[in-house]
Amino acid sequence: MEYIDLRSDTVTQPTPAMRKAMAEAVMGDDVYEDDPTVKELENKSAAILKKEAALFVPTGTFGNQLALLTHCSRGTEVILNENCHIVQHECGAAALISGVQLRCFEPANPYPVSKEYEKRIRIPGDIHEPVTSLLVTENPLSNGTVLPLSELTALKNLGERFNLPIHMDGARIFNAALSLNVSPAEIARCADSVMFCFSKGLCAPVGSMLAGTKEFIKKARKNRKLMGGGLHKAGAVAAAALVALQEMPPLLRDDHEKALLLGQLLSEIPELSVDITRIQINMVFFNFRNNNIDREALATYLMENGILINPPDKDGIIRLVTHHWITSDNLKTTVSAIKDFLL
Amino acid sequence: MEYIDLRSDTVTQPTPAMRKAMAEAVMGDDVYEDDPTVKELENKSAAILKKEAALFVPTGTFGNQLALLTHCSRGTEVILNENCHIVQHECGAAALISGVQLRCFEPANPYPVSKEYEKRIRIPGDIHEPVTSLLVTENPLSNGTVLPLSELTALKNLGERFNLPIHMDGARIFNAALSLNVSPAEIARCADSVMFCFSKGLCAPVGSMLAGTKEFIKKARKNRKLMGGGLHKAGAVAAAALVALQEMPPLLRDDHEKALLLGQLLSEIPELSVDITRIQINMVFFNFRNNNIDREALATYLMENGILINPPDKDGIIRLVTHHWITSDNLKTTVSAIKDFLL
Amino acid sequence: MEYIDLRSDTVTQPTPAMRKAMAEAVMGDDVYEDDPTVKELENKSAAILKKEAALFVPTGTFGNQLALLTHCSRGTEVILNENCHIVQHECGAAALISGVQLRCFEPANPYPVSKEYEKRIRIPGDIHEPVTSLLVTENPLSNGTVLPLSELTALKNLGERFNLPIHMDGARIFNAALSLNVSPAEIARCADSVMFCFSKGLCAPVGSMLAGTKEFIKKARKNRKLMGGGLHKAGAVAAAALVALQEMPPLLRDDHEKALLLGQLLSEIPELSVDITRIQINMVFFNFRNNNIDREALATYLMENGILINPPDKDGIIRLVTHHWITSDNLKTTVSAIKDFLL
Amino acid sequence: MEYIDLRSDTVTQPTPAMRKAMAEAVMGDDVYEDDPTVKELENKSAAILKKEAALFVPTGTFGNQLALLTHCSRGTEVILNENCHIVQHECGAAALISGVQLRCFEPANPYPVSKEYEKRIRIPGDIHEPVTSLLVTENPLSNGTVLPLSELTALKNLGERFNLPIHMDGARIFNAALSLNVSPAEIARCADSVMFCFSKGLCAPVGSMLAGTKEFIKKARKNRKLMGGGLHKAGAVAAAALVALQEMPPLLRDDHEKALLLGQLLSEIPELSVDITRIQINMVFFNFRNNNIDREALATYLMENGILINPPDKDGIIRLVTHHWITSDNLKTTVSAIKDFLL
Repeated sequence: MEYIDLRSDTVTQPTPAMRKAMAEAVMGDDVYEDDPTVKELENKSAAILKKEAALFVPTGTFGNQLALLTHCSRGTEVILNENCHIVQHECGAAALISGVQLRCFEPANPYPVSKEYEKRIRIPGDIHEPVTSLLVTENPLSNGTVLPLSELTALKNLGERFNLPIHMDGARIFNAALSLNVSPAEIARCADSVMFCFSKGLCAPVGSMLAGTKEFIKKARKNRKLMGGGLHKAGAVAAAALVALQEMPPLLRDDHEKALLLGQLLSEIPELSVDITRIQINMVFFNFRNNNIDREALATYLMENGILINPPDKDGIIRLVTHHWITSDNLKTTVSAIKDFLL
Repeated sequence: MEYIDLRSDTVTQPTPAMRKAMAEAVMGDDVYEDDPTVKELENKSAAILKKEAALFVPTGTFGNQLALLTHCSRGTEVILNENCHIVQHECGAAALISGVQLRCFEPANPYPVSKEYEKRIRIPGDIHEPVTSLLVTENPLSNGTVLPLSELTALKNLGERFNLPIHMDGARIFNAALSLNVSPAEIARCADSVMFCFSKGLCAPVGSMLAGTKEFIKKARKNRKLMGGGLHKAGAVAAAALVALQEMPPLLRDDHEKALLLGQLLSEIPELSVDITRIQINMVFFNFRNNNIDREALATYLMENGILINPPDKDGIIRLVTHHWITSDNLKTTVSAIKDFLL
Repeated sequence: MEYIDLRSDTVTQPTPAMRKAMAEAVMGDDVYEDDPTVKELENKSAAILKKEAALFVPTGTFGNQLALLTHCSRGTEVILNENCHIVQHECGAAALISGVQLRCFEPANPYPVSKEYEKRIRIPGDIHEPVTSLLVTENPLSNGTVLPLSELTALKNLGERFNLPIHMDGARIFNAALSLNVSPAEIARCADSVMFCFSKGLCAPVGSMLAGTKEFIKKARKNRKLMGGGLHKAGAVAAAALVALQEMPPLLRDDHEKALLLGQLLSEIPELSVDITRIQINMVFFNFRNNNIDREALATYLMENGILINPPDKDGIIRLVTHHWITSDNLKTTVSAIKDFLL
Repeated sequence: MEYIDLRSDTVTQPTPAMRKAMAEAVMGDDVYEDDPTVKELENKSAAILKKEAALFVPTGTFGNQLALLTHCSRGTEVILNENCHIVQHECGAAALISGVQLRCFEPANPYPVSKEYEKRIRIPGDIHEPVTSLLVTENPLSNGTVLPLSELTALKNLGERFNLPIHMDGARIFNAALSLNVSPAEIARCADSVMFCFSKGLCAPVGSMLAGTKEFIKKARKNRKLMGGGLHKAGAVAAAALVALQEMPPLLRDDHEKALLLGQLLSEIPELSVDITRIQINMVFFNFRNNNIDREALATYLMENGILINPPDKDGIIRLVTHHWITSDNLKTTVSAIKDFLL
């Protein structure tokens, strides 16, 4: 059975062009830095982000953790939004692998602001205190919000003022760029290192990219080996990622439009609350006005009707994610099934 | 030159009885568990807190970090107030030594409440998430506030509901007990493990205690060795701590009264803002109404006049700490010097 | 320019069947355990090794480190041969990621024997000692030697006697099985967990497998996420690995024969010393009888003549590795070039 | 009951002068670097070892682990004798705290030689390899052997040649100096950092010292805080250590002589094998010629007769340690009891 899969854009399938690219990929052993396809992908990625260099990594989590390991000495502190992927969805790896203390905060607004970072910065001098070694930002945020350039610039200025590097989890940076109507490089210039993913909305099967200065990437290459991410013939998957990088970014606009459509359809269901203005990328969040609705039952009901969604978060909010393989009809089918569930 | 030292109660000197006790201490090699003085101190401490067992450790930071190492598996998450000692003043050790992720939060109120912990608890199940392994509380807080028993009980209930242990940094638990007018055991019963210090208001030169179940302390004993805290003839300092435990707790009342007196004297200086209602233990916090006052200059001026204070925090707030060796006259001298500075 | 690449069997290219399989792979998001190709590969791998379960991982280093993280508590000790991959070629990851102490030893014989492990085992009880948590074996060894079943069985018995798990780095376990003329399962039964690689002699582009009990693999799945190895549509590369698993193992015999041929040809060069009896898999080791020969110059000379070899080890020994894409003619060309170099 | 305690020299008691010194100690808060007694002890220790600076630490294990944490980046490799204290008796802390890989080796001779270190050194360059960050030596060794200056000098030269620091676990460096008939500084000059203990043969109750360059000690001071070793009024125990440093080193000669006497008495028992030539400090090792003798029964028998010894090692060898509080009569009583046991 083919499901309508709205759980995430990680469930996307590669396009025929990507499959063909994998079959025909020129490969070499990338541990020896001999894989031309990987090199091409790294160079193109660096160029798009206007960074000096880039490194292909197995996953987004890998790329984020590699950035922490490469930027930060053990026993230092990293300041970041409590709701970001590194805090929420990376199994606590930052302490285990890098030995860094996460200094997380709950943003007062829909997105974190530089003042919230600034008041937590700790400079060397006090014998009791860990020193801040990194500021982490995310764009878009895990909650689908896109940080405006003004805020990113404020953070960049803060980092420069305190001589602190900034890492950006830009897993969906192309979605953010579309939403802000700027180039990805405009966003990436506000961070010293940027990670983005090929296997989400861009539809490639496997892989993420970590970009930064040449020196940073050189260190990261060794650390990638340490973390077990030195793939031998990575060109096999890099070939698909290369197609993704070339063809998919403009198509993300469709995903955003589908999210907007889905949001509108859902907002017409009186039992639901949907904040349409929050739909900035390919994610729609809704809740039931009635707290007692059994949300798990909804997930089960939809699955029985061929639709996959993720469980609600702690507040009962449900996230739906559109992507390349979701059609307008799929969305109508989904909305209709939700209505049936509510009958 | 003898300074009036208001930087902390860690600057206290041992009493003559403590000095005598050190000179006459019966000692043995505590690594072999042969030191009767240490055993007596551990047993008395456990009895006072109504815990099964206790372990003598070199410092408060050591005791807190040992608790984390013993309670938590690596890669798990610890929920705690952003302003507590473990986050603020232990050099980022929790990530480095125990490999645990600190999930810290800024309390909305003067003290953290159980709801703020609860919404951050993560139970096993999601492959992306670290699992919560410990809740950490502190009483009194680093900011001098004493948590009421009602709040501690709420936290205890939360821990029981989620089957999560609670560690209490009770560095000054005797001060908290005095302030709440309850026994230390009443406070300690709300936590599975409790650390308290002998070398602060209790005036012993060296040492802290970690208390908990027998099983916990057995594991902690091995971990204490690993962390380099297995002192050989610890009885030398335990003897002084034993005197401290027997004689000093009731005397802390004087420290609290001196703090109140100091607060009142300071509040009479129009240039200062002092919240007297916040003086719950031996700490007084004040600020200048005029943001432009050079607080570093005050510290220098006072030092030149024989008075030691710590630098202000980021908001310019200055903390003064009273203790056994501060007299009422010392306080008057201090207030007078501050007035002179403001002339 | 197409090189004759004798540096390693990691430089192998995928076969046309593998390329086709990648292009046609059925994929799903393996983080959601939705990828049928990965599942098939894991099930087949487990079946071949007669283990309960298996987990697809990005690399061999990843698989080994994941095994350590999953078997061992921090602060414990792992006993292993000083010359194995984990000690030699994994960037010191074991201490950094798993916090385990490597207790390595230099084997007195061409391969480590169980007595060398046994005398290093430490059981709980002494407060000063780390406890042994794992024995690590490797087959074949990094030096091309294959451990006989008798020795593996002795190690297995040792593990059972002390209730200690055994992890086997079986990166080239199919080569070992051929050499011993037994099934891979015969070898794997002597270990609790086994890692093997698809991207070496088996010619797949990417991926390794970690096999063990169901419970072990369940824990390893979560740890794989923590380490950043949760690939989304891993089926893309698993499809090629599946072909590799089905088609390549019998063909490794050719690689071994080519190694033997190469060894014989080299042994006919009087300036070289080659121990033919040590050629048990696809690796040939030789040295120059004259210590003063510039081995780096040989590597440079060969490269200029279209042949790639790795730098010598500390003792000047050079390793050549045969594989699927090396022909007999390639070997003759290589030997001839070495002769020319010696003229 | 007063036992004759031959388990270790950690069981020594402080002398009356030390007790008096503790009672009269001038103290301050050493976290604020305000304790004059600690400063004096650190300065004298540095002067004796001819190092720039020194830092008082709670234990020898603490000092060794602090040295590792301060010298080594995570993911690097430390080369050391498999039988040294750091490998054998520090609970695996090096991996857990510092994230360093121990590259240990079994010395071919009674003591490790520089060639055994040299062949394991790894310099930067290979992407697979951890880089060597530290060489560790020990003098005397845990087995009572004293390294000759020639060997230490060879190691020092090796370190200089590869630009690698050397840490010396000199827990009993004063015993080694006596045995070699040189000053402790002569030994210490062969290492970049040296740790020695006050609470063993020197009879102080608590404390060890870590010495090195000013820069190293500055970093170590912060790391000491992180590891929970920042004692407040450390002067209490430093005062006793100061007496120990001034009065005890020459008296260690008696301990050595008593060890020799004990060795001679034991060697007269035909059932025992004792290598008198191995008695270089205050340790005597003996074994039973008959492997079947129940060594645990000996320990029990002796305890019942008022004599404490440690359990035998894996080879059945028993270590006896002499110290300040052991008399010649005690030794005769012990030997007599062993004879009775053998009847």
